[in-house]
Amino acid sequence: MINLEAFFKISYGLYIVSSGDKDHGNGYISNTVFQVTSEPAQFAACCNKNNYTCGLIEQYGCFTVSVLGESASPDIFGRFGYRSGKDFNKLEGMNVAYETTGAPVILNDSLGYLECRVVQKTDVGSHIIFIGELVNAQICNVTDEPMTYAYYRKIRKGLSPKNAPTYIDKTKLEVRVTETSIYKCTACGHIYDESKEKVKFKDLPDDWKCPVCGADKEDFIKV
Amino acid sequence: MINLEAFFKISYGLYIVSSGDKDHGNGYISNTVFQVTSEPAQFAACCNKNNYTCGLIEQYGCFTVSVLGESASPDIFGRFGYRSGKDFNKLEGMNVAYETTGAPVILNDSLGYLECRVVQKTDVGSHIIFIGELVNAQICNVTDEPMTYAYYRKIRKGLSPKNAPTYIDKTKLEVRVTETSIYKCTACGHIYDESKEKVKFKDLPDDWKCPVCGADKEDFIKV
Repeated sequence: MINLEAFFKISYGLYIVSSGDKDHGNGYISNTVFQVTSEPAQFAACCNKNNYTCGLIEQYGCFTVSVLGESASPDIFGRFGYRSGKDFNKLEGMNVAYETTGAPVILNDSLGYLECRVVQKTDVGSHIIFIGELVNAQICNVTDEPMTYAYYRKIRKGLSPKNAPTYIDKTKLEVRVTETSIYKCTACGHIYDESKEKVKFKDLPDDWKCPVCGADKEDFIKV
Repeated sequence: MINLEAFFKISYGLYIVSSGDKDHGNGYISNTVFQVTSEPAQFAACCNKNNYTCGLIEQYGCFTVSVLGESASPDIFGRFGYRSGKDFNKLEGMNVAYETTGAPVILNDSLGYLECRVVQKTDVGSHIIFIGELVNAQICNVTDEPMTYAYYRKIRKGLSPKNAPTYIDKTKLEVRVTETSIYKCTACGHIYDESKEKVKFKDLPDDWKCPVCGADKEDFIKV
């Protein structure tokens, strides 16, 4: 028996994992970055094969990890979590550094970052776990706290996008609301379907934002 | 350049990872358990080769993960984090379930648990990353919050034991306190107050252990 709610008890941070170079860089929102050894310091990043960044990590043999803070703007989740680098230059207009590996390091909303050179990889089906040896680690912000996936879910009301290792088909979760309506973001078209959410739209906090584009709650209309 | 403080920006939960069976079971405190794919649901657990449990996972081909809550007792960290199953039966007197895999599931202080069958493993040097396909997932406690490593460090003032992927040589960290004669066990919180003892902490023998939980002398920090 598998109770999907147990999945939410596993803790994660939220990161932008990037690769490529100045001309062909891309990144995606990840919650699966982990240190796997201390001597030498090695980190694992689990990446969906459909992510454009996955191919870049294979091609360039390196990845960077920017640690997102709790105050990260909703825009960053829309840009790096819900759009594809295949048809959109996610780095345009962003604050990006190029250091030891030459791969882009996203500095917007970042508390600190790591740079790793890939030393091995494990194919786990839909995803690849890249193991990288750490070559650079820096701190950018000492006041904000790292954003956890729990914080993102509870406070920001965000959910994992389809390519995430932790994606859950929302229709499989127990639905606790009965009469439901559908609300649409007038900014980006994102649909808030109460039948697939645990919280009625009117019960969302006033400062709730569209998880895709960051528009305000009041920018949604009933459809 | 590597700033070790950046390592603390990566978020983790805290778990007891166990394996074996009713007669030969063991578990250890882990902070590196993460979901790697959703279809099928697979989880990774990164285990030091020196851990007694590591050999059991290889032998039995399965592992269980108990998610520790914020209210977990300090004893559980002493028992599962700082003692070895090679010379101590960690499961004696504990509340243990044996379900789908037959491996022990520690229920004490657990919010929920997962059972996985190992489908592949990756040798990353000092550690092995076991990839397991989920066969059972349950919730035990819906009120307590999952304990994160950040919470353990900040609120409980705990540090990683030597076999953890995130172990940091404490002498490498900047010491921010000046002079004091009180030492605290990072495993269970026990205080060694030199003003109430006959022996200065530094003069205690190297094999001295915490009288409460059995942690090593080096696991104490000056407070």
